[in-house]
Amino acid sequence: MTSPETVNTLSPTLELAMELMRRPSVTPDDQGCQELMIERLAQLGFQIERLPFGDVENFWAVHGHHGPVLAFAGHTDVVPSGPEVHWQYPPFEPRIDDDGMLCGRGAADMKGSLAAMLTAVERFVTEHPDHPGRIAFLITSDEEGPAVDGTRAVVEHLRESHDRLDYCIVGEPSSTEQLGDVIKNGRRGSLGGVLHVRGTQGHVAYPHLARNPIHQAAPALDALVREHWDGGNAFFPATSFQISNLRAGTGATNVIPGDLEATFNFRYSTEVTHEALQQRTEAILETHGLDFHIDWTLNGEPFLTAEGELVDATLAGVEDVLARRPELSTSGGTSDGRFIASLGSQVVELGPLNATIHKVDERVRAADLDDLSRIYEAVLARLFVNGTSRP
Amino acid sequence: MTSPETVNTLSPTLELAMELMRRPSVTPDDQGCQELMIERLAQLGFQIERLPFGDVENFWAVHGHHGPVLAFAGHTDVVPSGPEVHWQYPPFEPRIDDDGMLCGRGAADMKGSLAAMLTAVERFVTEHPDHPGRIAFLITSDEEGPAVDGTRAVVEHLRESHDRLDYCIVGEPSSTEQLGDVIKNGRRGSLGGVLHVRGTQGHVAYPHLARNPIHQAAPALDALVREHWDGGNAFFPATSFQISNLRAGTGATNVIPGDLEATFNFRYSTEVTHEALQQRTEAILETHGLDFHIDWTLNGEPFLTAEGELVDATLAGVEDVLARRPELSTSGGTSDGRFIASLGSQVVELGPLNATIHKVDERVRAADLDDLSRIYEAVLARLFVNGTSRP
Repeated sequence: MTSPETVNTLSPTLELAMELMRRPSVTPDDQGCQELMIERLAQLGFQIERLPFGDVENFWAVHGHHGPVLAFAGHTDVVPSGPEVHWQYPPFEPRIDDDGMLCGRGAADMKGSLAAMLTAVERFVTEHPDHPGRIAFLITSDEEGPAVDGTRAVVEHLRESHDRLDYCIVGEPSSTEQLGDVIKNGRRGSLGGVLHVRGTQGHVAYPHLARNPIHQAAPALDALVREHWDGGNAFFPATSFQISNLRAGTGATNVIPGDLEATFNFRYSTEVTHEALQQRTEAILETHGLDFHIDWTLNGEPFLTAEGELVDATLAGVEDVLARRPELSTSGGTSDGRFIASLGSQVVELGPLNATIHKVDERVRAADLDDLSRIYEAVLARLFVNGTSRP
Repeated sequence: MTSPETVNTLSPTLELAMELMRRPSVTPDDQGCQELMIERLAQLGFQIERLPFGDVENFWAVHGHHGPVLAFAGHTDVVPSGPEVHWQYPPFEPRIDDDGMLCGRGAADMKGSLAAMLTAVERFVTEHPDHPGRIAFLITSDEEGPAVDGTRAVVEHLRESHDRLDYCIVGEPSSTEQLGDVIKNGRRGSLGGVLHVRGTQGHVAYPHLARNPIHQAAPALDALVREHWDGGNAFFPATSFQISNLRAGTGATNVIPGDLEATFNFRYSTEVTHEALQQRTEAILETHGLDFHIDWTLNGEPFLTAEGELVDATLAGVEDVLARRPELSTSGGTSDGRFIASLGSQVVELGPLNATIHKVDERVRAADLDDLSRIYEAVLARLFVNGTSRP
């Protein structure tokens, strides 16, 4: 447990992280987190633009007047804690335990990152009040929820107002074993579909009078599973197809069902497009003679920042602080990075270890947040002061 | 509508049918139907053995002391009517409409047959009080329900007490277009199974960490659908396999499910056994590398009375009355005939048209029940008096 003496020695990053974590800001209820950040940014001289959409609070803040824009992007919302009795410590009473771990909901995803970004910028702007380029914050209170009125809406606003956004660092917890071991420089696309197959209901004793949609769908689904959609590329694994849900039948054991529903999902690389996947899926089903339709949902297009100033500066920033070279990766689910990349921006994700996110006893090494703040500051310096050449 | 004058001219068969139909004997509640039959049979000199099992009433009644036993088998229970407002006439207020149709629940399935059997036997025994052979009734109040404590239990009782049962006419509505056009001389077997396939749950973004039971099952189910189980024979169509229900998935679109459940049913001929079907099914699933188990339910083994005195007598009896030769068939679902055939008895099913059974506005041509009674009487005469040579 943190003793009173220890509390007095907390770094500004940990102080701010814990202040944010004390607010149970379950999506989309911000609980004052953003006002706390806005107050600190306004003191630094940031121009604040509050951008509420629906019941979601968002803001865009900019410091500096000319040159390329580097935005720190993140979310103040957290996923629910579930029953608090399952937690070692109350999820919204953050503390640093005897092992030096900052414990509580949001420690890793992603109030720790928010605090690290803000203190990094505070130090950088104080040291370089007339820094070249512009520094921005793009903060939402709905990344964990529907994510419609959050970053997506802010990005549309920026697009319409022709705001510039050259580089973006998303604070998502990208690290896997050690802080900074992985930087995400892209994400696979996610395309969902619900397949409805129509048959003709009947009695199992009279199959010649029915048309069993299960019998029809089985070889077609097998063909979709066996299809080689692409081979991936240097940055992406091969596109994958998974059926998550399957449902047919009335429950009665003597009735041939009249329809079948299958829910599936593509995680896809930049080697294919969602249009191509849709077209190829439907062609395979047609080959099998199915009477079907598909409700498609494009959850997110893939994005990739293969190379450039931001990737170089981020790799160098991690090496500056930790003397270790991160791996670039595009694995995992989707993130708000997909919306920002649609502006043509270079986007990377860099944050703490993701081992405990969305789980009980979410926690992150306290010292990692201080290192993360130094990394963010080093990236700022690499981009706007030192240039991006390797040390 | 039947006028009072018409009511006075009702045949004993129609009088009895309507008296039975006035009792709402929904499975297994007999509502006194069997006591009504028992009273009439006792008057004729039948020995009555009441055989209640659980909440099901059954009886076995025999007339005569020597020689082969011909049993009339049937059930006093009916399926529920559903909302009475959907019926043209109240379902338990039987009447003969202007088209000469006897309307009401049980008219076809099978109180009409019960009445026809009983009046046929009354006339035959009155005319031949010392008939050779023995005449029996095997009546249950649970054919439409679980069918565990009904005919099955009575048959086990007969087996244990070494009672003889050579020939059995089941009163199930076998006719399709005209009375007596179809006699069923067998039924296919019914074997049910619930297949459980075990996989490994996971996130759709990390399929390499999971094992999708839908993906595994699809080609295996397709192989079962495509399997040629047998070619049928002169009496049975080829064995059929149908999947009636399929279920997998948590409902979440991003979760690979951990298991799959498929419910299927075989309708099988006498060319295969249920043991062979089970073995072949499991072998196919093993070929596909599935981690599975199957809960099997043998609903009924197939039975067949290919030829013999009963088939000859029944065909001749129909021709005697209607001057038309019935077709022998084994189509349709299962019936209580499967239990009786297990005694080694010759079994046929002969009853009125089945077009309206289990539906609203169940009805049967009133004149058909009088003809049916004459046919049952003619079969008795063919078996026990005239011999079975064709006229």
